[in-house]
Amino acid sequence: MNMIPYNHWLRSLWNLLMLFVILLFLLVISYRQIFDLFQPDAAYWIFVGLFIVDIILNFFTTIKRGHIRMEKPFEVRRFYVRTSFWLDCVAALPVEGLFFWLWGPLGSQDSFVSALYLLALSITLVKLLKAGSIFKYLQESLGIMPAARRLLLFAYWLVVVVHLIALGWVWIGAVESGRPSLDRYLRALYWATTTIATIGYGDYTPDHNNNLQIIYTVIIELFGVGMFSYVIANVSSLVANLDVAKSAYRRHLDEVNAFLHAQRIPLHLQERVRDYYSYLWEQQRGVSTMQVLQEFPRSLSQEILLYLNRDVLERVELFCGADELFIREAMQLLKSEVFLPGEYIIHQGEIGDCMYFLTSGTVQVLVDGKEITRLGPGSPFGETALVEQGHRNASVVSIDYSTGYRLSKSDFEGLRQKYPEFDAHIQKVVAGRKKN
Amino acid sequence: MNMIPYNHWLRSLWNLLMLFVILLFLLVISYRQIFDLFQPDAAYWIFVGLFIVDIILNFFTTIKRGHIRMEKPFEVRRFYVRTSFWLDCVAALPVEGLFFWLWGPLGSQDSFVSALYLLALSITLVKLLKAGSIFKYLQESLGIMPAARRLLLFAYWLVVVVHLIALGWVWIGAVESGRPSLDRYLRALYWATTTIATIGYGDYTPDHNNNLQIIYTVIIELFGVGMFSYVIANVSSLVANLDVAKSAYRRHLDEVNAFLHAQRIPLHLQERVRDYYSYLWEQQRGVSTMQVLQEFPRSLSQEILLYLNRDVLERVELFCGADELFIREAMQLLKSEVFLPGEYIIHQGEIGDCMYFLTSGTVQVLVDGKEITRLGPGSPFGETALVEQGHRNASVVSIDYSTGYRLSKSDFEGLRQKYPEFDAHIQKVVAGRKKN
Amino acid sequence: MNMIPYNHWLRSLWNLLMLFVILLFLLVISYRQIFDLFQPDAAYWIFVGLFIVDIILNFFTTIKRGHIRMEKPFEVRRFYVRTSFWLDCVAALPVEGLFFWLWGPLGSQDSFVSALYLLALSITLVKLLKAGSIFKYLQESLGIMPAARRLLLFAYWLVVVVHLIALGWVWIGAVESGRPSLDRYLRALYWATTTIATIGYGDYTPDHNNNLQIIYTVIIELFGVGMFSYVIANVSSLVANLDVAKSAYRRHLDEVNAFLHAQRIPLHLQERVRDYYSYLWEQQRGVSTMQVLQEFPRSLSQEILLYLNRDVLERVELFCGADELFIREAMQLLKSEVFLPGEYIIHQGEIGDCMYFLTSGTVQVLVDGKEITRLGPGSPFGETALVEQGHRNASVVSIDYSTGYRLSKSDFEGLRQKYPEFDAHIQKVVAGRKKN
Amino acid sequence: MNMIPYNHWLRSLWNLLMLFVILLFLLVISYRQIFDLFQPDAAYWIFVGLFIVDIILNFFTTIKRGHIRMEKPFEVRRFYVRTSFWLDCVAALPVEGLFFWLWGPLGSQDSFVSALYLLALSITLVKLLKAGSIFKYLQESLGIMPAARRLLLFAYWLVVVVHLIALGWVWIGAVESGRPSLDRYLRALYWATTTIATIGYGDYTPDHNNNLQIIYTVIIELFGVGMFSYVIANVSSLVANLDVAKSAYRRHLDEVNAFLHAQRIPLHLQERVRDYYSYLWEQQRGVSTMQVLQEFPRSLSQEILLYLNRDVLERVELFCGADELFIREAMQLLKSEVFLPGEYIIHQGEIGDCMYFLTSGTVQVLVDGKEITRLGPGSPFGETALVEQGHRNASVVSIDYSTGYRLSKSDFEGLRQKYPEFDAHIQKVVAGRKKN
Repeated sequence: MNMIPYNHWLRSLWNLLMLFVILLFLLVISYRQIFDLFQPDAAYWIFVGLFIVDIILNFFTTIKRGHIRMEKPFEVRRFYVRTSFWLDCVAALPVEGLFFWLWGPLGSQDSFVSALYLLALSITLVKLLKAGSIFKYLQESLGIMPAARRLLLFAYWLVVVVHLIALGWVWIGAVESGRPSLDRYLRALYWATTTIATIGYGDYTPDHNNNLQIIYTVIIELFGVGMFSYVIANVSSLVANLDVAKSAYRRHLDEVNAFLHAQRIPLHLQERVRDYYSYLWEQQRGVSTMQVLQEFPRSLSQEILLYLNRDVLERVELFCGADELFIREAMQLLKSEVFLPGEYIIHQGEIGDCMYFLTSGTVQVLVDGKEITRLGPGSPFGETALVEQGHRNASVVSIDYSTGYRLSKSDFEGLRQKYPEFDAHIQKVVAGRKKN
Repeated sequence: MNMIPYNHWLRSLWNLLMLFVILLFLLVISYRQIFDLFQPDAAYWIFVGLFIVDIILNFFTTIKRGHIRMEKPFEVRRFYVRTSFWLDCVAALPVEGLFFWLWGPLGSQDSFVSALYLLALSITLVKLLKAGSIFKYLQESLGIMPAARRLLLFAYWLVVVVHLIALGWVWIGAVESGRPSLDRYLRALYWATTTIATIGYGDYTPDHNNNLQIIYTVIIELFGVGMFSYVIANVSSLVANLDVAKSAYRRHLDEVNAFLHAQRIPLHLQERVRDYYSYLWEQQRGVSTMQVLQEFPRSLSQEILLYLNRDVLERVELFCGADELFIREAMQLLKSEVFLPGEYIIHQGEIGDCMYFLTSGTVQVLVDGKEITRLGPGSPFGETALVEQGHRNASVVSIDYSTGYRLSKSDFEGLRQKYPEFDAHIQKVVAGRKKN
Repeated sequence: MNMIPYNHWLRSLWNLLMLFVILLFLLVISYRQIFDLFQPDAAYWIFVGLFIVDIILNFFTTIKRGHIRMEKPFEVRRFYVRTSFWLDCVAALPVEGLFFWLWGPLGSQDSFVSALYLLALSITLVKLLKAGSIFKYLQESLGIMPAARRLLLFAYWLVVVVHLIALGWVWIGAVESGRPSLDRYLRALYWATTTIATIGYGDYTPDHNNNLQIIYTVIIELFGVGMFSYVIANVSSLVANLDVAKSAYRRHLDEVNAFLHAQRIPLHLQERVRDYYSYLWEQQRGVSTMQVLQEFPRSLSQEILLYLNRDVLERVELFCGADELFIREAMQLLKSEVFLPGEYIIHQGEIGDCMYFLTSGTVQVLVDGKEITRLGPGSPFGETALVEQGHRNASVVSIDYSTGYRLSKSDFEGLRQKYPEFDAHIQKVVAGRKKN
Repeated sequence: MNMIPYNHWLRSLWNLLMLFVILLFLLVISYRQIFDLFQPDAAYWIFVGLFIVDIILNFFTTIKRGHIRMEKPFEVRRFYVRTSFWLDCVAALPVEGLFFWLWGPLGSQDSFVSALYLLALSITLVKLLKAGSIFKYLQESLGIMPAARRLLLFAYWLVVVVHLIALGWVWIGAVESGRPSLDRYLRALYWATTTIATIGYGDYTPDHNNNLQIIYTVIIELFGVGMFSYVIANVSSLVANLDVAKSAYRRHLDEVNAFLHAQRIPLHLQERVRDYYSYLWEQQRGVSTMQVLQEFPRSLSQEILLYLNRDVLERVELFCGADELFIREAMQLLKSEVFLPGEYIIHQGEIGDCMYFLTSGTVQVLVDGKEITRLGPGSPFGETALVEQGHRNASVVSIDYSTGYRLSKSDFEGLRQKYPEFDAHIQKVVAGRKKN
């Protein structure tokens, strides 16, 4: 029998379902217990069944932990039994049903036994740990944006905690009596949110003659409020950073704007600067590719560069059919540059110390101010002067925004020495262009 | 017919007006609806008319998105129809009037139909999206300081949300009855702010026999409070960073002060350090020009340097009438320096490795301790030793605070080789100064 | 008689006990004072006795302050008497007992004298300073994770402050009368937490005819609330940073993810990048060893490198029995590198400019694409080309993730010149490998 | 007549007094106005007199603005009249007295006139601007730690705002009537703090039949709460950063600890690392001197180095009586280093590439493992090998923690070439040591 891949979409769907099942179980079953409505009925056993099915599925699903993959059945099972299997088993235990058969409903007990009973039932909270591990798992397989995932986690957690606080309030008898159970629950929930959000209308307060209710309130005030503040603070910062790249980019732009204001740069120059940054943002989403790649290991950054420049590689003559080793090495020597509309990339008459490959946009080639040709993405230019050690024999001007790679003279020489085919190719291109 | 430029001041004024109109519309019309005072009267149709006029104006206004400008009528209209046109149309729909003709006022319905009716009316909230896009637009054309703009946005948003929370409170019948509508609205507003600011006096609370009101309160408690905390946190950080440059400068000064304290530097030296920083702040507003320019593309940073140094360029003999290419290249080789009152910029007898251009302030030239001349902004000095490879033949002392550019020997040699006119000019200046 | 070492576990246990004793003393004795239940009974004198024993123990415990250790009895005592001895003495003074004997219980006084009495009793708060110094001490000797320690400190502090606010409330007569003392204390505690957590139910408020209670409430509102917010903010940030390394790592991963998303890197490449980071995290816990070591003084960073690489040193032939000076110097020249599964570390035919030492994982040696051997941790490879200045005569491919050190050609030459034994050894190894 | 120096301690005292006077004036006079107790009595005229005296004093006090000092009477007066003079005049206007004479007490007016009257009286708030400028002034002359100053500013501001909110509450008639004025003020203050701290007991709320009171409460809820949160957030961050250096140091130590934990460095090595950092903290207060000095202008950093090393300069033979230019230049070439107890600074037999100057601590000089001498602060060592290009002829071991400066061979050669006296001196020292 085949194993289910850990990142199969049906498997991820099942996990999402399990998250929902755990939430529902905790909300519904604990609600029924507290209001003495609990019966181990069909719905209850379906819930329990789902937990058992999950365990069985885990035995047949490949595993990924960090960078390690486990795909052989034996390996998977050994790992599972050694790690979260026991937790899953405890989470699947039908404690509510068992206890109901053994001792009857929660409310039929006297106060002290009832407290012990409740303590025993709290085994069911182990399901929250299971939910936590499913969240981790989903992150690995779905690759949801982390900030969004954490928001969801906070919401999940908040719902469970507020629910438990409300049920505790019911259990200690603090809620208005003489109403149907749902109404009483609603009022407990109302008290819970009013308290942890520090609003405290004061229409529902602990009974002044009941120490237990006062102590419960003090504890909820300290921890509930702390938790709520923590959640709000985190959610605020998550909302602010939903798009990490965008907010970093905006902060940087603020600094640039501050500079432009402080130095009273004229408005048309300011606008050009801002246009440049908005172009950069559209191209790179505020992340400098080269900077990120620097910290990747060599082989990985080469692969990513090959992917990012797949269009260029196809269009640049030099690279067509070239040795892969050569391409990989050349890729890492290129420096990315942005050219503004009207910018002179090369000035005729200068002594050249680099060549360029255009990756996007269009450039004009001017000799003595007259356009002789236009070059599009994929074209190399400026290589003549490098080969012949002389002055630039033409100017190159960017028409619109364009981007290109720059290859410096020293790196160019290094490549020619190391790769004779490259040298041959370059000489051919130069010869060809001279004739034109 | 000519297009209206996107950044014309009348166009920006119209946009500001539209922002105000949207706010007023949302406040007034929704208020009238809830209190059953709504009649599709003249004022209402004027509002609707303004939305339609805005759509028409958009067809005749040039567009700027990021770095792209659209100025041709055809281009503009195609882009507009493909983007925010449909949103604008929905925002201009007179849904309130239509529904009133079809089904009469909101309050005349029974409870369930009324809820559906309200849902349909919420189409009008699309106007908020329109407001959002106008805000973005204004930023582009007015260039308001970003922090201030975001503060405004928060205020706008907060007013709308608090208003809607208050109207919701009225609609579910939770507000004191038996008062005129404005009074009832005011009390609902009072309840809303008291709740979301987490004050919760408890003089107005949901009716304990009304589940809807309790549920409404719970929801407002969780989301309203979250939103309010978020707004307060953001406003606090915006207020703290209204002047990004200033707060960064102050933080840096704190560190310098900590160092001066820790090392117990004597007070007169501490004062000199602080004076230096306050001079720096006045000159550069805490932003190091050179650092910011480094990340601009070459042509842009050259242009900004040309602008910033336009006075120097006029006064420095070397640059008058020089080739623009030379000036641009030279500009980028210069390093900005600050000289303190009494500081020896050049010591007589030293071996020189750089020359200077004064950009502000005055310096004394001393030979054997005697002042022989004073130099003002625009003067180059220290070039003799560079040309003749010898020792400095005079000292140069800054009289007050002054700033200058430094050109190192190696860069100087590079420029002389590359630009023969510069070389000739330098030799002439040196020869001239020798005679003095 | 021997001194007790400052970091003996029994000594640390005693300190923990003292922290608990101080807390208990402050809670119990002040409670008894306010409710006029205080009697200088056995329990009280046991408390006092423990404080005195602590002073005596301090005379016999070695001291560590920053980097200075004091172990000689005379030194220890002189230092102790000059520093915290007097504080400890004041903390050990049985002021409550003395005052009780002199003036009787607190409650028997008239209002003004009672206030003076209370002021005198506040000497006992000096014990908090003692608790503070014990906390510092424990940090030094136990090395608890700082964040956890600060959380504990906040909890300790919060308990004491809330207790004191509640007692103050009792003392000014604001609490419900006509209940047993513990009930009244509980209600005061309830009022205190309800107030400082800004909930303010309003069921217990100051008596509107009692100015003192109103003033007390205003003060608690301003300072208590400020303190509570401060604690919540700090606890939130502590919880968020319980694992500094982990949260920094996660933030960095967020940025990398943003880059991968923005550039639309294909999923299989994204997964490889994430695998790489999770491998890095497992290996280094997100901290770049080399970066941290750079700021350590040379001798310390050498020692830590020796420790971290103790396995490698045993397994690498080159280092076995080598001079320690040589090993220490070589260690600092090595650069750590990570190789991905399938990555070519060395390409056959390249010109080599470095050699490697494998520290973990396995690599294949391929000649013309055929595996000729595998190398495990501790093996050096790539040294042949370095010695003979030629092309790589084999490829080396990492099988799984592996890590290694890289020694560049220039550093290699430097070491061979400086250490002749190393040179001899290298030549032997190369000769041996050629025969194979 | 002489000018008063801006930083004379009596002048600063006067400013502190003025701050107190402004606060008192705002509190007392506005209180009296609202409760109709105001009479332009002696106390009032004394207040007014103090404001006038302050203006006069300002005409005779030198001025410092940023790095600019003004000391000539004419200059001072022109600057003062052009800047804050008019503000000071408005602040000194006895508006309360004038209005009292013109229109009688505030309470005698009917409601509308009373509101206009109050508006006119708000001119007096200009005094707050004056307080703001005095705060700035005091910072300049007293050099209080900035964080502490800002805390004070917040407290000052908070007191004024809470006071004004409470008076507003009184003025709109919301406070309990039928009590003496101080009691009513106290209850208004109680309401104000209960509201802005978001506690909201609900024992004092606006009269539900009074729209003005409800509107006032809504406004205070939005702005007062925002302000209070802002203050709390700022005070929290100020408290956390009271000692900038310390908190930065602690954060850094957390990272180092995380590294030590993650790599499971043995405890004795961990302790050495921590000892090193605590030594560093004692020596440098966590601020790297060299790093700070780098951004100072050359002459300033030289002066500070001269000050910091004044002891060394006196004790090091080389520098006694040396040319100041030489000392200044040498100072900047030295690199500060810390040596651990037992660390070998120099190994016998090594090829030397630097010399050292000991600045604190003691080192042993060992030849073949035998101690031949000890060197204390001020001693240079390691210079022999530099002069003679050979191997180190002795080892040097740090006994305890010690610090020294390192002068590299290349810098050393540069100095000898440039300064012949230095060269001569070095040769003499080497010759002298050889004889020993």
